Amino acid sequence: MKKIVLTGAAGRLGSYLREPLANMCETLISSDLVDDIGKLYDGEKYVRADLASLSDMNDLLADADMVVHFGAIGDEAPFDAILQSNIVGAYNVWEAAYQNGVRRVVYASSVHAVGMHKSNDGIGIDAPHRPDTYYGLAKCFAEDLASLYWDKRGVESVCMRIFSCAKVTNPRAVGTWLSYDDLIHLVERAITTPVTGFSVVYGISNNDRAPVDNTKATFLGYRPKDNAEQFAKEIYANSDPLDPNDLAHQCIGGPFATVELGNSGVASLNIVDDAKKT
Amino acid sequence: MKKIVLTGAAGRLGSYLREPLANMCETLISSDLVDDIGKLYDGEKYVRADLASLSDMNDLLADADMVVHFGAIGDEAPFDAILQSNIVGAYNVWEAAYQNGVRRVVYASSVHAVGMHKSNDGIGIDAPHRPDTYYGLAKCFAEDLASLYWDKRGVESVCMRIFSCAKVTNPRAVGTWLSYDDLIHLVERAITTPVTGFSVVYGISNNDRAPVDNTKATFLGYRPKDNAEQFAKEIYANSDPLDPNDLAHQCIGGPFATVELGNSGVASLNIVDDAKKT
Amino acid sequence: MKKIVLTGAAGRLGSYLREPLANMCETLISSDLVDDIGKLYDGEKYVRADLASLSDMNDLLADADMVVHFGAIGDEAPFDAILQSNIVGAYNVWEAAYQNGVRRVVYASSVHAVGMHKSNDGIGIDAPHRPDTYYGLAKCFAEDLASLYWDKRGVESVCMRIFSCAKVTNPRAVGTWLSYDDLIHLVERAITTPVTGFSVVYGISNNDRAPVDNTKATFLGYRPKDNAEQFAKEIYANSDPLDPNDLAHQCIGGPFATVELGNSGVASLNIVDDAKKT
Amino acid sequence: MKKIVLTGAAGRLGSYLREPLANMCETLISSDLVDDIGKLYDGEKYVRADLASLSDMNDLLADADMVVHFGAIGDEAPFDAILQSNIVGAYNVWEAAYQNGVRRVVYASSVHAVGMHKSNDGIGIDAPHRPDTYYGLAKCFAEDLASLYWDKRGVESVCMRIFSCAKVTNPRAVGTWLSYDDLIHLVERAITTPVTGFSVVYGISNNDRAPVDNTKATFLGYRPKDNAEQFAKEIYANSDPLDPNDLAHQCIGGPFATVELGNSGVASLNIVDDAKKT
Amino acid sequence: MKKIVLTGAAGRLGSYLREPLANMCETLISSDLVDDIGKLYDGEKYVRADLASLSDMNDLLADADMVVHFGAIGDEAPFDAILQSNIVGAYNVWEAAYQNGVRRVVYASSVHAVGMHKSNDGIGIDAPHRPDTYYGLAKCFAEDLASLYWDKRGVESVCMRIFSCAKVTNPRAVGTWLSYDDLIHLVERAITTPVTGFSVVYGISNNDRAPVDNTKATFLGYRPKDNAEQFAKEIYANSDPLDPNDLAHQCIGGPFATVELGNSGVASLNIVDDAKKT
Amino acid sequence: MKKIVLTGAAGRLGSYLREPLANMCETLISSDLVDDIGKLYDGEKYVRADLASLSDMNDLLADADMVVHFGAIGDEAPFDAILQSNIVGAYNVWEAAYQNGVRRVVYASSVHAVGMHKSNDGIGIDAPHRPDTYYGLAKCFAEDLASLYWDKRGVESVCMRIFSCAKVTNPRAVGTWLSYDDLIHLVERAITTPVTGFSVVYGISNNDRAPVDNTKATFLGYRPKDNAEQFAKEIYANSDPLDPNDLAHQCIGGPFATVELGNSGVASLNIVDDAKKT
Repeated sequence: MKKIVLTGAAGRLGSYLREPLANMCETLISSDLVDDIGKLYDGEKYVRADLASLSDMNDLLADADMVVHFGAIGDEAPFDAILQSNIVGAYNVWEAAYQNGVRRVVYASSVHAVGMHKSNDGIGIDAPHRPDTYYGLAKCFAEDLASLYWDKRGVESVCMRIFSCAKVTNPRAVGTWLSYDDLIHLVERAITTPVTGFSVVYGISNNDRAPVDNTKATFLGYRPKDNAEQFAKEIYANSDPLDPNDLAHQCIGGPFATVELGNSGVASLNIVDDAKKT
Repeated sequence: MKKIVLTGAAGRLGSYLREPLANMCETLISSDLVDDIGKLYDGEKYVRADLASLSDMNDLLADADMVVHFGAIGDEAPFDAILQSNIVGAYNVWEAAYQNGVRRVVYASSVHAVGMHKSNDGIGIDAPHRPDTYYGLAKCFAEDLASLYWDKRGVESVCMRIFSCAKVTNPRAVGTWLSYDDLIHLVERAITTPVTGFSVVYGISNNDRAPVDNTKATFLGYRPKDNAEQFAKEIYANSDPLDPNDLAHQCIGGPFATVELGNSGVASLNIVDDAKKT
Repeated sequence: MKKIVLTGAAGRLGSYLREPLANMCETLISSDLVDDIGKLYDGEKYVRADLASLSDMNDLLADADMVVHFGAIGDEAPFDAILQSNIVGAYNVWEAAYQNGVRRVVYASSVHAVGMHKSNDGIGIDAPHRPDTYYGLAKCFAEDLASLYWDKRGVESVCMRIFSCAKVTNPRAVGTWLSYDDLIHLVERAITTPVTGFSVVYGISNNDRAPVDNTKATFLGYRPKDNAEQFAKEIYANSDPLDPNDLAHQCIGGPFATVELGNSGVASLNIVDDAKKT
Repeated sequence: MKKIVLTGAAGRLGSYLREPLANMCETLISSDLVDDIGKLYDGEKYVRADLASLSDMNDLLADADMVVHFGAIGDEAPFDAILQSNIVGAYNVWEAAYQNGVRRVVYASSVHAVGMHKSNDGIGIDAPHRPDTYYGLAKCFAEDLASLYWDKRGVESVCMRIFSCAKVTNPRAVGTWLSYDDLIHLVERAITTPVTGFSVVYGISNNDRAPVDNTKATFLGYRPKDNAEQFAKEIYANSDPLDPNDLAHQCIGGPFATVELGNSGVASLNIVDDAKKT
Repeated sequence: MKKIVLTGAAGRLGSYLREPLANMCETLISSDLVDDIGKLYDGEKYVRADLASLSDMNDLLADADMVVHFGAIGDEAPFDAILQSNIVGAYNVWEAAYQNGVRRVVYASSVHAVGMHKSNDGIGIDAPHRPDTYYGLAKCFAEDLASLYWDKRGVESVCMRIFSCAKVTNPRAVGTWLSYDDLIHLVERAITTPVTGFSVVYGISNNDRAPVDNTKATFLGYRPKDNAEQFAKEIYANSDPLDPNDLAHQCIGGPFATVELGNSGVASLNIVDDAKKT
Repeated sequence: MKKIVLTGAAGRLGSYLREPLANMCETLISSDLVDDIGKLYDGEKYVRADLASLSDMNDLLADADMVVHFGAIGDEAPFDAILQSNIVGAYNVWEAAYQNGVRRVVYASSVHAVGMHKSNDGIGIDAPHRPDTYYGLAKCFAEDLASLYWDKRGVESVCMRIFSCAKVTNPRAVGTWLSYDDLIHLVERAITTPVTGFSVVYGISNNDRAPVDNTKATFLGYRPKDNAEQFAKEIYANSDPLDPNDLAHQCIGGPFATVELGNSGVASLNIVDDAKKT
């Protein structure tokens, strides 16, 4: 692969992806809103670009083979903010991908697109959207956009519904953890699978207590290796019993299932990406 | 019912709804972007308001029991235009409904939220989103928004996926017609059903060749009476054979399944609402 | 048909069935706990028998072709009472049917076997059990018993999940009404269908707003004719708006979805059968 | 429509279709193995042709718009006979349709392609094949052939799974009857529906006790009008009780569910087409 | 966890659970009908209590966090016996749990609740009940009871459908074995999962030939380690070919699929719990 | 096991099976159209026999316990050739099995029976037939034949839908590979499973990127060990990007999804069995 573009490269998850992505192509263009992301890896270039600008995106994606789109507000936020970064931003990425003949968008979708489903529903990738926040609503939008750009314009997408990609610090994450290594593995598979069309997959480690099922996406070859069960005993020992009637404990979206809409900064949440705005 | 608000009242479909809605409540507030909509029905008031303004919507929905939301661009259009009217507009309506304690949004969704599904799939209301245009993508967004406002804020919604509410002039419409009388009946049922939560229903007449199934929404009591089969013989006699390999003839979205994204003004389309922007 | 046995003949619903059943066979044996049920129809005999006694049931079902089992407590009640009448009573009926070579049990099951499902789930006959009361739990038991006696002993059953077979007096019943004529029609079809094996069907009229779907039981030929929509306008006009967050209004079991377990005498309920104990 | 070809025109069902088909096109080519089928309708021509001969089929289908394929052995028969008429014959029809640019095959499939399913399974058109005889096995073959010719060669097909198109003379047929008028209506809809791709539909009247469901094929516009319930009372009165453990009474294939394979001439069967070989 | 109660502690399976349960809490109350269960583990107390007595159960469950309910007749038995121990006993446990604020019932349900399903149906946890015996019928009852107590009273349950928890001695058990270690692991997961609501899971080891699927219950974290394939070669070598038409070999309930109802003492059965009555 | 018959023993896959099958029974009868297959294994006998001859098959299967049926044209071919070898040949095998009391047919079905399904549909074993070639169509026929012989005549079958059992030389095979060892393991399980009835299973290795799901066939105990991911890096490095709009890359049938019907000799295909005609 000649050229991959990474958005949100200064974000928490984006930062982890820079090195492995740089190893997968001749040129990695890392991009974010900051002026500088420090030392670059071999083959990596940094370009400041604003997701809110289609023009920026068009410049950024020129000649790219694929774009790995992690740039967005990574937490619940007021609708206006989500609208600009996560909705308009998604449009700009897919539209620029189309205009530049980019083959595929590898997208950081989120469990919060389906966060109001319950753990004991055991949903697969074909469950209907059921967002838990504006943040999740924007992920639904981007997935439907991805479906549209595949059906109408032949741009492929892999929508990775990322769960809790952070240190395991609470009982929910024993089921919902996504280790950094498994994240990297998932992104690698989303890139190397020869043909994906429009596809959806849960980004979750091989946790004993994972509440969702990727069976219908097996062709992507995602085989996570890590397992949060290693943290279970300690986490449970230090945690009070959870109220079974609390939707925050029933739903796979966790605390997002009960957070006030537009209320950013939920302290206890396992956030996906804390870059405030890429 | 004391007060109902109608958006898009100057649009083609909105115009048809004014009289029956006025008969269903003490006060009907009709609203659109024009200065005047002419003679008013008993109990009807007209208020100019811009969907793009949350402040306008908050004023409009004060003390309302329900809002019947038909205001939007009623055709495929460039993304920017769809974003303002159909996406931000939808947010403003649901948010104002929440802020004003409005019980329910009766929403003019569209077949184009699922337009890439095929006639011989025979989909029900639980088929996944599969938009065919930006227009359809905005309907997907509004449906997911409706789901979110029910789950998180207790605002009810009935998302009516309207098919071809216009004169039957082509073979597709023999299957997809929604008569004006059935539209009125559907809106009436969406209003009078005591409790709806978040719900979806296809707005299509009792056509012999209707390609979708409302079985899972029977509790709404929608029982259409008209049947486009009455037009079939003449329409078919005056129509050339259709190419079976053309997605525009396979998909329930019809010509939207192949129209260029952002390309407004598709002449042959059975458009839902031709108000350019309410 | 030579001989049909009716249990619960002195109950509200049982009373309605005596005349039509008497017309369908040479001998109808009506049975209940009372000493006398008054004037008998042509071909009808009355036999006092206690469902709690297997011996009584064995005597009652001798030489019968079919048994129409409506005898039971027809309301929520303390578990002990339900256990005797509705659980042990059901066992005695099926066991006596088996011991006497009775071909089929036509059983008054109830919506309350699945009462915690929601109206906008649009369930069919294959939804899992989800009882709302001890009363509903006993219906689940009897349906599973019926399944067992078919699989292991070849006794057929038609489990009719009766909804609101009473005067329409509240908004829920506009959707859930079962008219007396449709009840009689349903029982007639349950009897005349040549082969039924173990089968389940909803006992609900052809209401515009019926919340369930009998598609998978079409072979039974149940085609209800009445429609509670005739009562809708008046009922709705005299009813306050319903709280959409109240499970009693979301669930198809209605007030049973929130009633205290074991609490008999729910005044607002559309009860199936008010015979206290047949 | 300019030209329609009918195979099996001398068969029982084919004979009924000649007049209505002649009225639907400029030229109807009726075909069978006999030398003469008597008086012709306006616009009808008779051509002797052997389904077992691809050359005959190629001559027959030249310039045709559609072919209505009813020619086959219409009963269970030894495998050799089925192989020639119903398997090779089907191949010849679809292949000749392809070679001659014929748009669509309207095919007399049969319930016996799924005859081992049970009445109380209430199957739809998407149930897996489950043939009950060699006759049914050949119908499965032809349906899969139709799927293949659509996917690979763009030839459309409507596979009509015909039930009991004959006088109602037994209890099963009260559920499985297909009246001649409904057969004609179904064939008309299979021809006039503008685009069908590969599709399947049950050919059964609007019987109260019909054991299958056409919901997923609604776009074809098949709305049967007749109802065998009119015969129920008399048929049931003259029929002994049926053994519920007999697969011939449980399965929708009826007596074919228990007939010996290859055993033609089942007297009690409601056969589809008694032409021995067209 | 402070206090766990185990019923059926003198039974075969209960005996295995005493030590691991004692290690999971400060106080384990083991209970059964015998006077003495011998040497106690650290933290364990023995209390004689009769499941048939609600009063006994109320005393037993006071201040408990959870109850692990294994007490019941562990074999097919006459209905009267099943009724007392397995039906009334279940009611008493759940009711006492509710009255004492016990959070969760971890329940020894059984494959026999769904025993008439076939191995090659490959059912998941959402298959409908299909009991094979009175024993299985009582398990269905208890599962529905558990559903009811969750929906109406907020008592959680994990219904473990235990397969063949015994030495592998016949061909069926090569697929249906549950090792003691896996049983202990399953019970541990059922206890430690933070929130379960009402849930169902199959209790079966990681056998190559396991005939059921736990995918929809993954959130419980049950990951069995043992595999009966180690016994396959020897078992098969010493076993005659099985009749494929025998339901005892087709159905996952095994010999229970053909045993006479109420017939206890089936020698070849892999019984769950041989305590005659706890 | 006393006697197993292998058809297609001179074919590529058949050759691999001779030794392991010889080890599983007292006598292995290997059969094909050639005069001699060279050195025999202990317990193996070679018998020349023509699948096109029922008489040959009857002689061949006398006294056999099972038949492992791999004889057929192993590539797309003109219909006439497929008809003789793969359709008539299948009939002769099942019919001879029936006539000789052979318990089970272990059948080399193929992915091409469902080859037009797409990788990102993630189908299971219950997906409808969707053949991609005449070759696949004949596999559909044989599976339906197997269903019929089980339902009507009690002959068991395991239909193994074999994917790419050959050296991994292209990107598709990274997902679709079946190693020889896993093939042998699958055949061994198809033989040793005590009761199979009619069953279907995908013959595919434990590839990370396998596009199908065997969950519903777990009772067969097929647990593949090999994984084509070992070849991925090299294969991908030497392969041009694949056109995502090409059905040959979207469909699980691979190049068969676009090959001309009847066109043998597709060079790039991973063929199942290259024996020209056994």
